[in-house]
Amino acid sequence: MTAGFSFRVSAVDGQARTGQIETPRGSVPTPAFMPVGTRAAVKAVDPQEVRQSGAAMLLGNTYHLMLRPGEALIERAGGLAAFMGWHGPTLTDSGGYQVFSLGERVAISDDGAAFSSHIDGTREVLTPERAIAIQGALGSDIAMVLDECPPGTADRDTVVRAMSRTTLWAARQVGLPRPRGQALFGIVQGGVHTDLRLDHLGALRPLGFDGLALGGLSVGEPVSEMHRVVAEVAPEMPADTPRYLMGVGTPSDLLCAIENGIDMFDCVLPTRNARNGQAFVHKGRINIKQAKYAEDKRPLEPGCSCPCCTRFERQYLRHLFTVGEMLVSRLLTLHNLYHYGSLMAGARRAIADGCFTDFKKHWFDPLDPSE
Amino acid sequence: MTAGFSFRVSAVDGQARTGQIETPRGSVPTPAFMPVGTRAAVKAVDPQEVRQSGAAMLLGNTYHLMLRPGEALIERAGGLAAFMGWHGPTLTDSGGYQVFSLGERVAISDDGAAFSSHIDGTREVLTPERAIAIQGALGSDIAMVLDECPPGTADRDTVVRAMSRTTLWAARQVGLPRPRGQALFGIVQGGVHTDLRLDHLGALRPLGFDGLALGGLSVGEPVSEMHRVVAEVAPEMPADTPRYLMGVGTPSDLLCAIENGIDMFDCVLPTRNARNGQAFVHKGRINIKQAKYAEDKRPLEPGCSCPCCTRFERQYLRHLFTVGEMLVSRLLTLHNLYHYGSLMAGARRAIADGCFTDFKKHWFDPLDPSE
Repeated sequence: MTAGFSFRVSAVDGQARTGQIETPRGSVPTPAFMPVGTRAAVKAVDPQEVRQSGAAMLLGNTYHLMLRPGEALIERAGGLAAFMGWHGPTLTDSGGYQVFSLGERVAISDDGAAFSSHIDGTREVLTPERAIAIQGALGSDIAMVLDECPPGTADRDTVVRAMSRTTLWAARQVGLPRPRGQALFGIVQGGVHTDLRLDHLGALRPLGFDGLALGGLSVGEPVSEMHRVVAEVAPEMPADTPRYLMGVGTPSDLLCAIENGIDMFDCVLPTRNARNGQAFVHKGRINIKQAKYAEDKRPLEPGCSCPCCTRFERQYLRHLFTVGEMLVSRLLTLHNLYHYGSLMAGARRAIADGCFTDFKKHWFDPLDPSE
Repeated sequence: MTAGFSFRVSAVDGQARTGQIETPRGSVPTPAFMPVGTRAAVKAVDPQEVRQSGAAMLLGNTYHLMLRPGEALIERAGGLAAFMGWHGPTLTDSGGYQVFSLGERVAISDDGAAFSSHIDGTREVLTPERAIAIQGALGSDIAMVLDECPPGTADRDTVVRAMSRTTLWAARQVGLPRPRGQALFGIVQGGVHTDLRLDHLGALRPLGFDGLALGGLSVGEPVSEMHRVVAEVAPEMPADTPRYLMGVGTPSDLLCAIENGIDMFDCVLPTRNARNGQAFVHKGRINIKQAKYAEDKRPLEPGCSCPCCTRFERQYLRHLFTVGEMLVSRLLTLHNLYHYGSLMAGARRAIADGCFTDFKKHWFDPLDPSE
């Protein structure tokens, strides 16, 4: 375990667990949801607002940051957290996922991935070694290994090859120098094949990572498959280090994953959907542009204590969305981040109290047809 | 004077004056700068932030609001302030200026202005009577008469005709029913011709408005001409009611106008320029996209107590602007609104202390070549 980094489980309830990650930049109570600060900003909100929503740790995207403003500038600024005015821990991904999804003319080999920047076509190379070096410059509290993440529709052979390469890369990365206190997590691949997932878990376990993630989920496979894999694999992951489900998901996904022992999440859903006019509420989701909200004087979620619901009515939010005022992106993002923050805080409390199953069952009110 | 509305001058310093406007929704210390909430939102910021910048009154645009969401919806919502969550007074313009600048196929007669909506081409008519009725529905604390505002390049004859029509319309509007406590201001036209301005002032004065505005300035004429007209006309405006310079301006414009006895201003400059990356500082202006700020670790304005300067560095703001993160629009808007708020608060204090000339002279530091 990296010095300065630790994880302690304080209570379990079935497979679900609650605890605390300690990093050099602060504590993160788990289960934890990390809002995504792609380009050193959680879109539409400021770091103080993100903190107030209950988030303790942010995710930054290595791919975006290496291109703009470049990791060297961020290193000279004192690291990602200092650069963006976030007073807390950060986790950086390895850049691999975005190279495969956003990069152009991607050529992958055991050496690494060559690609052209989606911004200006500049040819770049991301090797396992460079992914660690960039994350070192970004100065995150948790770095992720570079992995190969095949699409959800990939056949079993492709998944096996990606797994092998991910293991090879993981072994090359685990011993590389990192800044003091920066933890390193490995990533378990294997698609929707539980036997492959467990094989890969077995291959990574001896490498002594500070935590392990499930990667390559929520990448196009059916939701039920994702839930099945999490249920079958998460409980087999080491119990004494954090378990991180990458890029997931909806409130319902989070509840299922927590139930199976996942400790950490990141996802763009609460922020991206907000900008598209969608708010998460206990009854499901609200699409604020709908005409039925034109004179609706209720807050998005009656009883919600977020800075949107305590100050603004649906009719006003709909007007802002209709005319294209950017204020609505911020207000819906705030609501969604508070909704996720409240979900995670409630889950932690429920696990500590031994009533997570009940909490999960009652999170979603029955759908109200008036919505 | 409309019941519930009053104005009291508490100190004068040369022509400059400081005082207080009382409205049913609260007090407005003068000189006052009103941020522009075009479509029931001050772009990129929320009402609480606007208030904290020192603004006591907002301006809403009748033209935009009559088209979307429509004045009837806002009336049912309890008026513009309630609709947008602004706990304070509002002023609405008459819609005329935007009809002439944004409307399509504008046909103007003594009856009013027919035009096609710039949004969907719908044919609309704005008469003096309708302008008052809409503003009544919007429920602003100060309504403005519909006027005809010729471009800054108009010849003298055009200006004279616009003046006459504005007088005719003003006389028709002054006696129309308005909501309890809503004040009505007249608008002095006359272009850059001081004799015409004074003639028009003489024509409007007997109508007994609650305040008078100078309209048709900052519409394309040279800045020096605008300053001259304000200097020659403002001191001749009634002293016992507010004097409002519409659509102006830069900090330097505001200082010159205050020096000549203007009490109220509105302008999109601090908010619009912010969204284009421009920040107002004591040394002039900063264009945050410039490469020289790429690693500048200073706040926009060292010593500024705004929520942007106390938390973020120029290098981060430049990064946000470069990659197109909307957070930068909010942060620069906040800075600019605080800058204007601080300018007005300083002017009020200086007038009360009898040292406005000094205050005006020292607002702008000598340009620092390092900027």
